[in-house]
Amino acid sequence: MPISLGELATRFGCELIGDPDAVANGVASLPNATPESLTFLANSSHLTELPSTQAAAVILRAQDANACPVAAFICDDPYAMYARMAEVVCPEARVEPGVHETAVVADSASVADSAHIGATVVVGERSSIGENAVIGPGSVIGPDSVIGDNCRLIANVTIVKNVTMGARCIFHPGAVIGSDGFGNAMTADGWIKVPQLGGVRIGNDVEIGANTTIDRGAIDDTVIEDGVRLDNLCMIAHNVHIGAHTAMAGLTGIAGSTTIGKRCLFAGASGAVGHINVCDDVIVAARAVLTKDVTVPGTYAASFAAVETRSWAKQVARFRRLGALIERVKKLER
Amino acid sequence: MPISLGELATRFGCELIGDPDAVANGVASLPNATPESLTFLANSSHLTELPSTQAAAVILRAQDANACPVAAFICDDPYAMYARMAEVVCPEARVEPGVHETAVVADSASVADSAHIGATVVVGERSSIGENAVIGPGSVIGPDSVIGDNCRLIANVTIVKNVTMGARCIFHPGAVIGSDGFGNAMTADGWIKVPQLGGVRIGNDVEIGANTTIDRGAIDDTVIEDGVRLDNLCMIAHNVHIGAHTAMAGLTGIAGSTTIGKRCLFAGASGAVGHINVCDDVIVAARAVLTKDVTVPGTYAASFAAVETRSWAKQVARFRRLGALIERVKKLER
Amino acid sequence: MPISLGELATRFGCELIGDPDAVANGVASLPNATPESLTFLANSSHLTELPSTQAAAVILRAQDANACPVAAFICDDPYAMYARMAEVVCPEARVEPGVHETAVVADSASVADSAHIGATVVVGERSSIGENAVIGPGSVIGPDSVIGDNCRLIANVTIVKNVTMGARCIFHPGAVIGSDGFGNAMTADGWIKVPQLGGVRIGNDVEIGANTTIDRGAIDDTVIEDGVRLDNLCMIAHNVHIGAHTAMAGLTGIAGSTTIGKRCLFAGASGAVGHINVCDDVIVAARAVLTKDVTVPGTYAASFAAVETRSWAKQVARFRRLGALIERVKKLER
Repeated sequence: MPISLGELATRFGCELIGDPDAVANGVASLPNATPESLTFLANSSHLTELPSTQAAAVILRAQDANACPVAAFICDDPYAMYARMAEVVCPEARVEPGVHETAVVADSASVADSAHIGATVVVGERSSIGENAVIGPGSVIGPDSVIGDNCRLIANVTIVKNVTMGARCIFHPGAVIGSDGFGNAMTADGWIKVPQLGGVRIGNDVEIGANTTIDRGAIDDTVIEDGVRLDNLCMIAHNVHIGAHTAMAGLTGIAGSTTIGKRCLFAGASGAVGHINVCDDVIVAARAVLTKDVTVPGTYAASFAAVETRSWAKQVARFRRLGALIERVKKLER
Repeated sequence: MPISLGELATRFGCELIGDPDAVANGVASLPNATPESLTFLANSSHLTELPSTQAAAVILRAQDANACPVAAFICDDPYAMYARMAEVVCPEARVEPGVHETAVVADSASVADSAHIGATVVVGERSSIGENAVIGPGSVIGPDSVIGDNCRLIANVTIVKNVTMGARCIFHPGAVIGSDGFGNAMTADGWIKVPQLGGVRIGNDVEIGANTTIDRGAIDDTVIEDGVRLDNLCMIAHNVHIGAHTAMAGLTGIAGSTTIGKRCLFAGASGAVGHINVCDDVIVAARAVLTKDVTVPGTYAASFAAVETRSWAKQVARFRRLGALIERVKKLER
Repeated sequence: MPISLGELATRFGCELIGDPDAVANGVASLPNATPESLTFLANSSHLTELPSTQAAAVILRAQDANACPVAAFICDDPYAMYARMAEVVCPEARVEPGVHETAVVADSASVADSAHIGATVVVGERSSIGENAVIGPGSVIGPDSVIGDNCRLIANVTIVKNVTMGARCIFHPGAVIGSDGFGNAMTADGWIKVPQLGGVRIGNDVEIGANTTIDRGAIDDTVIEDGVRLDNLCMIAHNVHIGAHTAMAGLTGIAGSTTIGKRCLFAGASGAVGHINVCDDVIVAARAVLTKDVTVPGTYAASFAAVETRSWAKQVARFRRLGALIERVKKLER
């Protein structure tokens, strides 16, 4: 949507160096920007791309303004400012309210007049869909669930049952929320299933990635607090509690009954075992797993960078023989 | 469903200490129990919660009965007993038989009169749906498959083709059973696809988690024996054979043609490489991977607990310099 | 489909030792083959199964022909030859063109007359479906996407938006292509979402496994080149670029903005961190993660084989005390 740089500057309280009547209409990366593109420089590793950009305007820090050949928005956090401006320059397509004729809504369910229920959607008994919510095609909402105002289920999302959420949550395709926890009791005849009778409680402004799964609690609820961000293919087991604004990258797994604090960051394919407590402001490196309570904020790691296989094999062999090396040192000490 | 403690005691052959006419109607955890709640104490770490519980009754071991302030069911395995009683106190909602008007069932498919085919379900050619089976909304059953009696596909499950199963299996949303195995042959022109012509054979009482995938065999079948339990987001490759009552936690992956024995336990994000044989009663720790045949029952591990990143980096540096350390010891020995 | 050995030999330019009028009708493994089965011997570990096979014919290398008790096709690469012949002997079921009456196709979408749109499929605004494409049941194709000629979406696939592809691609169930990248900017009020405005560009002959996710680019596109093969449950983040004929096994994850070269092989549950460049012809071992640029073709590894837990615990303890060992050696050196 075309919008003048001056209007962007005013709306977001951002200093503009350049012509306020010039227009941005679309976004681009620094090297691919055209004279109608809005772009940004948030990371000094892209500084070399700045002098030759042809953008309408670049969002950047004051220290980089001199090197900018075109109009510049000056701010302290160009990435966050870009996020806000991009939403205006490239707005989401409007979705019309209404229930598609192929959708199946249970008699006891309630759907706000302003909500959109897409093609082939199924809404179960006693569930409710909030104002301006958008339920994309193929999604299934089971019984006894609440989809909050302005929530969006993109497509093929499954809300199994007993799931409640606040406002403005986003669920990407294939996400499964409220599936049975993995509760099994061993008997002489093999496993018997432990009924999973809790739910999932989700706060406001939560975003859940494609094909991520969040299980219902066994008795009490699984809890996802406000502002949590989960990437694709994450696994959140039953009775996990994730604190506000914690983010987890793809393929992360949190085992059952573990509590994660606020503002934690889990890098890709990391995780935590079950039944532990992790305090606020913990950062977990890629592929590391927390195995016990964490009480001190900070960064935690546990994985090795890949190296050439022959070199790795030698290092592993030395590791396997550490006991022998220790014996040799002991002998020398005697 | 309200039920008297006396009736529960009789039905499950369990000693009751307390009023047999008192009623349980719902379950709860020890601290959250109300005077109508059934609860249990299976793990001594929750013993401190027992004295103040307000439950209708607690399922526990004889040794803990004295500390119980309310009625008690005495048994050897409170968790398994809870699983059985909870199923009675909180029964699954009944599902009406019949085919939903939006479902699409191929002419050559057969559906038992007692089965439930939910909204927008698709059933393919020559497939059959057993007695009392429940096929939840959005599920797709491809051709040439057999859904056994009393099986449940919760919602948005995909049974691709050539899949057979016994009775009482449960498939959680997003599970994909019978997808093509990853069979590719390299040629001068790049990969060519190797047709995947086998099927998947599943026993009785199997439960498959949300977004878990089980591939069809390349020629012979992939086999999942009775009572197997797979958690969410597991990957079972083509021609894997999983023995009865083996359980795998979330994000576990088993590569092609590997055979896993009976009663094995795979913790979260663990796995096995392809073409190996793993005997019965093997336990694999979280994030460990089996890389060769396992012939001795027992527990196997291979991962490091996360520690503070600076400490980890030092340890890795020492590991990388093990060769030099060994040289120094050799020199001292000379 | 029954076909004479002579016709197979002629069609694929393969030497036949045996009766050209004999017929193959189906495939089987060496030990399970019947007198109508086509089978193959590609791996010497199966050589012991050759003398007793009852197959119609075995595809094998010249060096193994003497030991073959039945007809033999002689070639250099029996596995690739099997792939080609199996496609003829066991052809895919034909799919009738047409749009199923329960499918929902947007007015502005275009569907080739020869394409098949299955039951409950949804096709979004301005998207196009190519010649002979097969869109399986439950699939959702969002707006502004191009499904190429002869592409197949097996079932319950989600193409979110802004996805284009070439010809002959295959997408297995639960695959999600074009989901939002994981773009979040931290602010004083928590995360704000960074709009994900790029797309996904996919080449020809690409195959994507069940429940694998490929995110749209943030600004520029995520790119998957010709002939790429991704197994199940892989996670390809925004702005990743995967070179032609690269293959990745299940549960592999590639973090954002990383470029992977051509003909690379990623074993199961391996991966790469974000913002790195990996050259052509790199092989990554199971569960290893690349953490920096790779400029030399070869194989890379980083994981430990599982061993008996007690032994592992001892080795980890020695590893944790490496610092102390080094001090002891230093003391000895003084």
